[in-house]
Amino acid sequence: MFTDIHNCCMLLGTADDILILCHKSPDGDTIGAAYGLYHALTHLGRRAAVRCSDPLPEKFAYIHGGIEMPEFEPQLIIAVDIAGPGLLGPALEQYADRVDLCIDHHVSNSDYAGLTLLDAQAAAACEVMTSVIRHLGVPLTKPMADALFTGCATDTGCFRYSNTTANTLRTAADLIDAGADSARITNDLFETVSRKRMTLENRIMDTLEYHFDDRCATIVMSRALLDELGAKVEDLEGIVSIPRRIEGVDVAVAFRENPSGTYKISVRTGEKANASAICENFGGGGHVRAAGCNVPGPLEHAKELLLEAVRKELTGA
Amino acid sequence: MFTDIHNCCMLLGTADDILILCHKSPDGDTIGAAYGLYHALTHLGRRAAVRCSDPLPEKFAYIHGGIEMPEFEPQLIIAVDIAGPGLLGPALEQYADRVDLCIDHHVSNSDYAGLTLLDAQAAAACEVMTSVIRHLGVPLTKPMADALFTGCATDTGCFRYSNTTANTLRTAADLIDAGADSARITNDLFETVSRKRMTLENRIMDTLEYHFDDRCATIVMSRALLDELGAKVEDLEGIVSIPRRIEGVDVAVAFRENPSGTYKISVRTGEKANASAICENFGGGGHVRAAGCNVPGPLEHAKELLLEAVRKELTGA
Repeated sequence: MFTDIHNCCMLLGTADDILILCHKSPDGDTIGAAYGLYHALTHLGRRAAVRCSDPLPEKFAYIHGGIEMPEFEPQLIIAVDIAGPGLLGPALEQYADRVDLCIDHHVSNSDYAGLTLLDAQAAAACEVMTSVIRHLGVPLTKPMADALFTGCATDTGCFRYSNTTANTLRTAADLIDAGADSARITNDLFETVSRKRMTLENRIMDTLEYHFDDRCATIVMSRALLDELGAKVEDLEGIVSIPRRIEGVDVAVAFRENPSGTYKISVRTGEKANASAICENFGGGGHVRAAGCNVPGPLEHAKELLLEAVRKELTGA
Repeated sequence: MFTDIHNCCMLLGTADDILILCHKSPDGDTIGAAYGLYHALTHLGRRAAVRCSDPLPEKFAYIHGGIEMPEFEPQLIIAVDIAGPGLLGPALEQYADRVDLCIDHHVSNSDYAGLTLLDAQAAAACEVMTSVIRHLGVPLTKPMADALFTGCATDTGCFRYSNTTANTLRTAADLIDAGADSARITNDLFETVSRKRMTLENRIMDTLEYHFDDRCATIVMSRALLDELGAKVEDLEGIVSIPRRIEGVDVAVAFRENPSGTYKISVRTGEKANASAICENFGGGGHVRAAGCNVPGPLEHAKELLLEAVRKELTGA
């Protein structure tokens, strides 16, 4: 059942031994919101613990590093930034039917928790959590501010994406005033790139091709290249968005060769094409701007299939 | 003489026929601040005009497009975002000794104007100008907001650089509330790249080399490549910053071949090296984090010279 911030804080006010859950493949927003809440609850003298099905990335160690989480039988279970129970991951799926409160910003939230505080206008769960902590009457400390600023930054591409609102920027400003080390956080997360990633991006962009009067751009991630550079799937995150940024490109397609010789396709589109419609031709799908599917190889065949689907989407015929 | 916002607004309150000057090679901040002030003054019923020595870039046409500037003999001359008279450019240098008021945020401002409102804490001249317009009692309109938001975004790498403060973010939030089309502006300026630029970046990054345990990264822009791609100097802006972003790189050096065969060197450094010190070895200079110089060719000779200077800077010997 959806609820408001007042009832959310009433519930938070009643319990001790509070378990806070992050979603699997944790990002800056779920980690930041969870640790922001953790610090607020311990400030109020409660016992709390954050748990996640996957290890928390090292790059967010300034949020989670050095904090030992206690073991206890939870009286209250809170999910943060988790739109549906499928995102809990193997280690936490035991809680799927037992989440008392969900604090989220995804419009797609499936209302699986006992109570859900949903602000779909918020760019980040950390933006919602900052309001919750204020409503609890807890002063924002530096550890809270570092955690909450992180989610506001990571879920907006550091305030570049269209989900960034005046409230997002004001929240970030308040978190800087509360001690968030915004200069270091934004530098480390957005202005620094690993040597491996730089090489990967460069070598993959060497395969760039244009089609249909340059409205479609394709890149290829061959098995040979990925093996040569020792690249894992997670190293490739977001690379398909690079050709999407090229002026005039409505559809970007990445062809990633699977070990079996089939191709994993990622499609990103601008306002003039539907990525999901393209991928549905091959049994895949996703969102309007981002979707995926698998197609058979070899590469020439995969390209032929995809480009025909792109042509249909661009021309409507 | 340096002054405060009250005296600045007193001066703005006294005059009509106000000429507003941008710096040469105009960027989003000087254009945004100038047009923000222009709209505020015309709102007050004053005659005002913006002038710049160079054409205003097409990408900022949403700020300057379709506005005809009147001709008049100025009673008041205002420079915005111009740290010294040398930045006026040929068409405006006639005003070098006649600037009545300068509104700026550069700590290096040479105090060349009659009065100077300097806020060196501000990330952008547009941040200062937003305060000035408020102090004038003029309500922020959409044209002002689009112009002023632009400078706040462009001078901070869209709120990524360390100059971004809580006040910068709050100012940007207020400008969004006043109607700035922040989603379109940030998408067009930061999330879109021309096909030519994408090719240039990729081909130049193909030349990436590491030195001194990967603490120095070099790239080469050969005449052959620049001619092949029809690249002008302005097309290369900021490319030297790409290798600087690589984790562990303290010094990035770009070698750009001049038509004469000499090399224009651009150096960017992190916290552990002084770019200006490196370039001073060759009669150049600049800032601690960004500097330049010229060295003789051929490329092997230029590299030898520069790498020896980088080695000295990194090892202190």
